[in-house]
Amino acid sequence: MVTIGVDIGGTKIAAGAVDGRGEIIDRITRDTPGTDSDSVMTAIVEVIRTLQEEHAVTAVGVAPAGFVSSDRSRMLFSPNLALTGVAIRERVMKDVGCAVVVENDANAAGWAEYRFGAGRDTTNMVMLTIGTGLGGAVIANNTLIRGAFGVAGELGHLRLVPDGRPCNCGQFGCWERYASGTALEQIAQSGAVSQVERAGALLERADGVPHRITGHDVTYLADAGDEYCRELIATLGRWIGEGIAMVASILDPGQVVVGGGVAAAGELLLEPARTRYDELLSARSERPHLEICEATLGNDAGIVGAADLARH
Amino acid sequence: MVTIGVDIGGTKIAAGAVDGRGEIIDRITRDTPGTDSDSVMTAIVEVIRTLQEEHAVTAVGVAPAGFVSSDRSRMLFSPNLALTGVAIRERVMKDVGCAVVVENDANAAGWAEYRFGAGRDTTNMVMLTIGTGLGGAVIANNTLIRGAFGVAGELGHLRLVPDGRPCNCGQFGCWERYASGTALEQIAQSGAVSQVERAGALLERADGVPHRITGHDVTYLADAGDEYCRELIATLGRWIGEGIAMVASILDPGQVVVGGGVAAAGELLLEPARTRYDELLSARSERPHLEICEATLGNDAGIVGAADLARH
Repeated sequence: MVTIGVDIGGTKIAAGAVDGRGEIIDRITRDTPGTDSDSVMTAIVEVIRTLQEEHAVTAVGVAPAGFVSSDRSRMLFSPNLALTGVAIRERVMKDVGCAVVVENDANAAGWAEYRFGAGRDTTNMVMLTIGTGLGGAVIANNTLIRGAFGVAGELGHLRLVPDGRPCNCGQFGCWERYASGTALEQIAQSGAVSQVERAGALLERADGVPHRITGHDVTYLADAGDEYCRELIATLGRWIGEGIAMVASILDPGQVVVGGGVAAAGELLLEPARTRYDELLSARSERPHLEICEATLGNDAGIVGAADLARH
Repeated sequence: MVTIGVDIGGTKIAAGAVDGRGEIIDRITRDTPGTDSDSVMTAIVEVIRTLQEEHAVTAVGVAPAGFVSSDRSRMLFSPNLALTGVAIRERVMKDVGCAVVVENDANAAGWAEYRFGAGRDTTNMVMLTIGTGLGGAVIANNTLIRGAFGVAGELGHLRLVPDGRPCNCGQFGCWERYASGTALEQIAQSGAVSQVERAGALLERADGVPHRITGHDVTYLADAGDEYCRELIATLGRWIGEGIAMVASILDPGQVVVGGGVAAAGELLLEPARTRYDELLSARSERPHLEICEATLGNDAGIVGAADLARH
């Protein structure tokens, strides 16, 4: 049985026809129109219809970035997409003629890792998607936890540091401000000003201009062995572990799966995360410890998860 | 159908025969033997047998304070009870001759409020039991969340303040150190030293000796209108709200139910909690807000919840 999954981010719309084992058998990607909700909706429907021409599908899963209402019909809030307030399920359903399920993009990615990826043997899992921001998903008792209002798993906005770095959500000290591609970029750029002698390779890649340094530059050089960039990744990793210890006292997951672009740093990121988690875990000698591991589905997780949620 | 629930705390063992509507139809209470696990186990079995003499029961729920293993058979860790490591389910089952379910005491209390108390109309609820410490329980998607290792909902050990007040769990800044009867006692005692002129009524109740002030003195005087004690309760309330905002970004519950001895302060405690939660909630204008309310089952929650969990 084939279903379609559509991952709708601020820059790209990626859709796939997915079989019952979570394999993407066909896919299509296009840029996200940035202007108004009608263009975004039209683009979503177009990618679905294109896939429908080749595949007989029974259901479609749509996974936009942002808050989805608890009845999964409507976008409550989507700061990076022109969809706030849009009755997205009805709009898509009208045009594609089959069942439509809407789910937050990070939740869809977490569901995919739980069903087919790194978390497929667990019953209680947390997914962290570390890209530009930090997205989260919570699976407990084999169920995706959506909360009373549909916005559970907003782990990027867990407060890590009281009165800490300001966040776009209006608060201070959110986890996302310390553990994301944006955070990595910021600490790399500041470091290139304050520790010029150590940031030579980084500055060279950025034509000597600190604010041109990207997160990708850091992961690239860390992978190539640059000591300073490895330390920057380790700093990010420690913040990841710090938040995981907090999540563990609430949810006690067996596994935390780390995905998103920054997760490509692999053990350079995860080893410091494990150490910091271990240091901060409450009653740590009296309880089994969770596993922190890398996601296995990469950028496909949103598509696969949305398609699988539509199937069920 | 009648089942038995047993709430096992560090000072008291309280057991009840409970009907299918959550009503306690018979009860028995005794002191907890503090010495060794055999005496504690004997006491537990005795209260169950006494109730069994009068009531034909199909199952027994046992709710000890501490970490219960994920298969709910064994105590992983019970710092206030001589039960660490005890195979409690098997031991009780052998002696009482019916099905036995073991559940952490705070989880049992939360389950009772969800089934029969303040949370009976909700699907996603968090319970805070604020007594000597701060116990928690998480209900999501109508299910009690136990986690991968059985220790989910240890909300008292959510880190609120990095490098904050030291906690018995080995960490610093745990929520319990700021929002519990013990915390109330501590801020009242320090306040009675540093702000003698405002703490007159408190000191009078404690024969002029700051370290004799109890949490109960504070709630009593607050209830009687003492301005300084009301401020102390409000301080506790703000810490409660601060943690609730953090829990909300992970779980998005519809309701937070506050029980335990300190909850008797009612609105003096809950109103500041609501205000602080509201100040700290991420993207607060873009989402529905949860309700913070008082528990309705009082000290019976542990018995009722344990009995109901045994029934299911």
